[in-house]
Amino acid sequence: MAQQDAQNGGSEKNNAAAAVVSFVAVKPQLLVEAPKANDAVLFYKAAFGAEEVSRALNPKRKADHELPLILSAELKIAGSSILVSDLAVDSTAPAKTGGNGIVLCLETEDVEAAVAKAVRAGAVKEGEVVEGEGGACCGGLVVKVKDPYGFIWQICSPVKASAEVAA
Amino acid sequence: MAQQDAQNGGSEKNNAAAAVVSFVAVKPQLLVEAPKANDAVLFYKAAFGAEEVSRALNPKRKADHELPLILSAELKIAGSSILVSDLAVDSTAPAKTGGNGIVLCLETEDVEAAVAKAVRAGAVKEGEVVEGEGGACCGGLVVKVKDPYGFIWQICSPVKASAEVAA
Repeated sequence: MAQQDAQNGGSEKNNAAAAVVSFVAVKPQLLVEAPKANDAVLFYKAAFGAEEVSRALNPKRKADHELPLILSAELKIAGSSILVSDLAVDSTAPAKTGGNGIVLCLETEDVEAAVAKAVRAGAVKEGEVVEGEGGACCGGLVVKVKDPYGFIWQICSPVKASAEVAA
Repeated sequence: MAQQDAQNGGSEKNNAAAAVVSFVAVKPQLLVEAPKANDAVLFYKAAFGAEEVSRALNPKRKADHELPLILSAELKIAGSSILVSDLAVDSTAPAKTGGNGIVLCLETEDVEAAVAKAVRAGAVKEGEVVEGEGGACCGGLVVKVKDPYGFIWQICSPVKASAEVAA
């Protein structure tokens, strides 16, 4: 398949589904009932020695809440990343409709090709590719797919380095 | 606290809760309705380019099923581990009572101390520490705790290197 892509130049839109897709990270994202994500982060630090790498707040809600909601906080446990997010009822975050409280974020430079490949394999796209709200997950484009076993995968551009690091 | 542990020698059982606990891995474990875990593994390979690192089958069920159930298969995506397991109704696997389809496996050399620390921080122990059934998760002792936000963490001994690797 890689050879075929090379022959076709791999640049035509119709070939996106056949492109070689690579991922740069996979991170479980824990969706916590708002506004408890901050408490959850404190708990994971106390219980599991998690280190907070970055935190992105929801700018749209800063005026309405004493504590701004957490778009996502990235924690490290044993070298692995865990994301913790406030799941607000009126949030426009793509994670909103995640079924079971945990979604799996897959970061890739080519979101469209990754989605096309997943759908060809049997996943179902949930909504369209949109611009993410930023944060530890979803540095740019983001879309969710549900796999045939009920799990939600959030395919998104790699996180930008601009996320603020909490003290 | 580390200094205090050092002064106390850190070896007495009563000090287990205060011991410095470190984790060697954290792996999301996807619980799939049996016997579809094998299909799920194939799907993750096709959709996300996952590589299978190891697979442990349930020895207790080999006689009853054409396809033995998967205790856990360890996949790598972007360098991260994902576990996929058959969730049988009559399974004795510790993962059985996982709430939402995904549990987070935390591997540590000191399961008892890790559980004690998590409980002190506010987690609730679900059942006792037991000998795991082996597999990509749970190389020895295993116990589950539910955190205050509803997520299930499976604290277990690091996986043994003896798990068979599927072709």
